[in-house]
Amino acid sequence: MGSAVHAGAIPLEEALSARDRDGTTAGEALRSMLAQLPKAGSRPLGSPAHAYIEAHIEQGPVLETAGRRIGIVSGIQGLRQFGVSIAGEEAHAGTTPRARRRDAFMTAHTIIGALAQLTMDRADTVRFTVGRFEVFPGSPNTVPGRVEFTIDLRHPHAGTLNRLGGGVFAACHRHAEPCTVDVRELLHSKPVLFDPTVVTRIRDAAGRMGFASLDIVSGATHDAKYMADLCSTGMIFVPCRGGISHNESEWAAPEDLAAGAEVLSEVVTDLAAE
Amino acid sequence: MGSAVHAGAIPLEEALSARDRDGTTAGEALRSMLAQLPKAGSRPLGSPAHAYIEAHIEQGPVLETAGRRIGIVSGIQGLRQFGVSIAGEEAHAGTTPRARRRDAFMTAHTIIGALAQLTMDRADTVRFTVGRFEVFPGSPNTVPGRVEFTIDLRHPHAGTLNRLGGGVFAACHRHAEPCTVDVRELLHSKPVLFDPTVVTRIRDAAGRMGFASLDIVSGATHDAKYMADLCSTGMIFVPCRGGISHNESEWAAPEDLAAGAEVLSEVVTDLAAE
Repeated sequence: MGSAVHAGAIPLEEALSARDRDGTTAGEALRSMLAQLPKAGSRPLGSPAHAYIEAHIEQGPVLETAGRRIGIVSGIQGLRQFGVSIAGEEAHAGTTPRARRRDAFMTAHTIIGALAQLTMDRADTVRFTVGRFEVFPGSPNTVPGRVEFTIDLRHPHAGTLNRLGGGVFAACHRHAEPCTVDVRELLHSKPVLFDPTVVTRIRDAAGRMGFASLDIVSGATHDAKYMADLCSTGMIFVPCRGGISHNESEWAAPEDLAAGAEVLSEVVTDLAAE
Repeated sequence: MGSAVHAGAIPLEEALSARDRDGTTAGEALRSMLAQLPKAGSRPLGSPAHAYIEAHIEQGPVLETAGRRIGIVSGIQGLRQFGVSIAGEEAHAGTTPRARRRDAFMTAHTIIGALAQLTMDRADTVRFTVGRFEVFPGSPNTVPGRVEFTIDLRHPHAGTLNRLGGGVFAACHRHAEPCTVDVRELLHSKPVLFDPTVVTRIRDAAGRMGFASLDIVSGATHDAKYMADLCSTGMIFVPCRGGISHNESEWAAPEDLAAGAEVLSEVVTDLAAE
């Protein structure tokens, strides 16, 4: 949130008025935290910035599987999220022949099958996830009259992400019969490419220090996404166990964290000397 | 329930102790209803019975679509219900490549695709329904770690129903990887074939009265299912609008209901004269 406001991607008022589950706004929480801190002199935000480098656990399993210590992050993949709503007709599971059904579940099944095929790339770069899927009325002997589901679609290249997103709309319309299908795009975050000169500095630093590294695209979003609009930006990843993050079992090896910090220090020192 | 107890398929104690949503047992409800009725002499249950004939709306769209007034019911199709539980692993939708996922949703999708194909008969006789389908944790950007769904499978012929039910277990095991799949059979109600001599009597009576008729299998269960164990049994169907039943919009044309009652009366009079 801080980086988005700093880069002007989100207005300050919008960020301060965001509410958590208990209804507390970010502004209220910030004021209450600041009141508990010892007084400190205020200083202006560091803008314009010369460069921005962020070190992070990968939050994925790629480095761990490859046995590499440093991820040279080339950018952040783009993300499109869709909400799909399918309206059919409830019917008795025993008495209604297939040809007479408007089965919202089977229509959803066909659409998702088409999208699974569309997003099946040999390089395993496309991320396609159906994370929420709800069926109504949800009774074993009733043909579902309504289904709601989400599609989460990610790719590092804007053109591919555009093509795949177009495929979501096309599949929903092509396979709608005998139901009616409504698709809404909930989120469209374009891919970010980091500054190649910063990426090269990180790769060179890791090489000089003898750390095994791997070029990687960030699957998750980071502050660097917004900072990349303001200045030269790059990221350094280290492995984390099982790719798990945002969870109590998140864990990274101390020697990997130290390696990431050493690369970060080296690159920042280099950039500061420019 | 009454016919199941009468035919000995369910013990009386079990039926009387069944509870509704408010927690009232059938026994309590019956006693409270009987207390409000004028006293009447009790009489023994009419067993042994010579024959049992049941008239009913079709609860399906077949007669209405075919434009026939009387359904000559040859029997009640069998029903098997299954509960399928798929355990995978929650993962970040952005950072986890397909090859590293144990996506419970996509495993469910593959299993259901195989079953939709297995149950696709040209005659449209098989009934295959996924009515309940729940995904956990149900967040758009989390690969689902668990899915629970039901399969409702019906067919008039016991052998076919056995084969298709076997196919459910086979598909769940064949396509389980990389998740683990647990299948339980929740319900197995065998098909019932009515007495052919009673079915012929109903067909002849409808013919003599000039009602357009159609041979049909009951998709829903009826009292006749249990009575068929005790005596010669048959059923007469009439059309209902849109195949809708157990719903406030259930409706049947008065002339269709009258036609059904006339056939019922004719057949019962015939049988009583035997």
